[in-house]
Amino acid sequence: MVTITDVAQAAGVSKNTVSRYLNQRGYISDKTRAAIQAAIDELHYQPNQIARSLYTHKTNLIGLVIPDVEHPFFSAITAQIEDELDARGYKMILCNTLHSSKKERKYLDLLIANKVDGIIIGSHSIDINYSDIDAPIVALDRNLSEDIPVVAADHAKGGEIAADAFIEHGCHKVIQLVSSGYVKTPSSKRHEVFTKRMCEAGVTCIVQELQLNQFEFQTYLKTADEILDSYPGLDGVFSADPVTAAIQRQALARGMRIPDDIFMFGYDGTFLAEAVFPPLPTVAQPYDQIAKTVVDVLMKKINGEKLEKMSYIIPISGRNMTAVSN
Amino acid sequence: MVTITDVAQAAGVSKNTVSRYLNQRGYISDKTRAAIQAAIDELHYQPNQIARSLYTHKTNLIGLVIPDVEHPFFSAITAQIEDELDARGYKMILCNTLHSSKKERKYLDLLIANKVDGIIIGSHSIDINYSDIDAPIVALDRNLSEDIPVVAADHAKGGEIAADAFIEHGCHKVIQLVSSGYVKTPSSKRHEVFTKRMCEAGVTCIVQELQLNQFEFQTYLKTADEILDSYPGLDGVFSADPVTAAIQRQALARGMRIPDDIFMFGYDGTFLAEAVFPPLPTVAQPYDQIAKTVVDVLMKKINGEKLEKMSYIIPISGRNMTAVSN
Repeated sequence: MVTITDVAQAAGVSKNTVSRYLNQRGYISDKTRAAIQAAIDELHYQPNQIARSLYTHKTNLIGLVIPDVEHPFFSAITAQIEDELDARGYKMILCNTLHSSKKERKYLDLLIANKVDGIIIGSHSIDINYSDIDAPIVALDRNLSEDIPVVAADHAKGGEIAADAFIEHGCHKVIQLVSSGYVKTPSSKRHEVFTKRMCEAGVTCIVQELQLNQFEFQTYLKTADEILDSYPGLDGVFSADPVTAAIQRQALARGMRIPDDIFMFGYDGTFLAEAVFPPLPTVAQPYDQIAKTVVDVLMKKINGEKLEKMSYIIPISGRNMTAVSN
Repeated sequence: MVTITDVAQAAGVSKNTVSRYLNQRGYISDKTRAAIQAAIDELHYQPNQIARSLYTHKTNLIGLVIPDVEHPFFSAITAQIEDELDARGYKMILCNTLHSSKKERKYLDLLIANKVDGIIIGSHSIDINYSDIDAPIVALDRNLSEDIPVVAADHAKGGEIAADAFIEHGCHKVIQLVSSGYVKTPSSKRHEVFTKRMCEAGVTCIVQELQLNQFEFQTYLKTADEILDSYPGLDGVFSADPVTAAIQRQALARGMRIPDDIFMFGYDGTFLAEAVFPPLPTVAQPYDQIAKTVVDVLMKKINGEKLEKMSYIIPISGRNMTAVSN
């Protein structure tokens, strides 16, 4: 095992100087820095990370709290956030809250116990007073509290793009499946804008809530059958990609033609929109830009920098729109 | 901030006794244990985790190294492993190696630097000599080295189930898309068994390798078109769910009927097999059992227990098999 003494010897400096270099403390000349780093590289010296953490009060760990990594929106954003954190020297602890509402609370406790340097929260827990927590937190597509910055796609624009597609397609009776209104999220904007625009165009717009934290595909298929049974004459469906895909599958199983009999429109722009046939027109979230912004804002909070705003809106656009005009 | 002194006072014991309780060191009577825990609960005492780690040499962190969390096989297994680790008091650091082959090496360095207690590796890196690492590692569906235990589904049985489905359906010319042979994985068993069984039944079986670590859906669609162009008279496709779904989509776009013109069979039993229409017959991996076994074996390694074997095979079965007989 290579020790700090070995590094000091190889670099021709004192142990104390190596220690100051590792902990970024006090003045060290560029020449000495280079010598120490060369010794570290040559000897493959691994500082004892736990001891270092105790001194620096940093763990280089970030918690990512999401409801379900199996949902293609969350798996896509998780991959991008992990990449962004890795590029900045941080590791990501993944917390999937779906099967335990207590997990989010446990993560906040970790933050308080100095086990992570910051948390990104994209989950749905609602029984926590986030304002009480004096630590670096960024909200991903969720409104947690007024003093926690939130990063989300431009969902108002998303609702507009979708509504225009249904209107252009000539739909008369459209259903919109929305997440539970129990939790306030920035994406509720898309539902508001969509409903308003459809009303103005004289299109019947049915709004139905999905159950809270419901991400099982088999449940979507059941919901799909209920909807197709309940609303004769329905000629349009708007929801997140997995829900729209489930309804499309059940409509096809009933011999309905898509988009001629019923127009399907997704949301999120996940790979699922490309995997089904016909591919779903959808509103694509720019996962890379969302992830980059989330991590940028979190780094500012960790470094104690002042944020210029509390809400970061990322532009979005439609995809697979060729199917729109009938 | 609640300190160890507050806990000691509330429990009516010495600071040293509380410290021994926290570090699970020396004898403490059940009554004293109960009193200390009650004081901890009542005061919401948070031990300084970093200081504790320094003493216990434990971080309660496990690294999960996978190529791509967006791939539905990996997102499903990631969700289950996180649940299993959480139930045992461990947090999971997620490492997505897709965009950087150096990441896996970095994770092994973390393990060596005592920053994680163990690693689960389901990734494809191949330039590492894993036997050199004297630390708790379990391989997920990958053969890393002879002295690292591996957990995988019964892929030989999987190949058999799939081959029988093509034979029963009456296929004559089938293509099997396999992962790059550059990396040895337990799932290569399914390809061996499948090819052998098809040959014995007199079915033409074309085998084509996919590029290494290729998980982009758009690339699958391109591959799909190349295959449909290259092999006239092809009447069967066998690959992982996302690849099969991509080929099914492009076949449908060409007006081919499924399964009448071309029989599609997936592998892994992800939600994608249910999302497309017609749903894909597939071989379903039991994600919960795989995750449980991976974590059980890792815990044994962490606790220094002897393993009874180095290979753990989990049973699998077919799903959506009604489409099989034509």
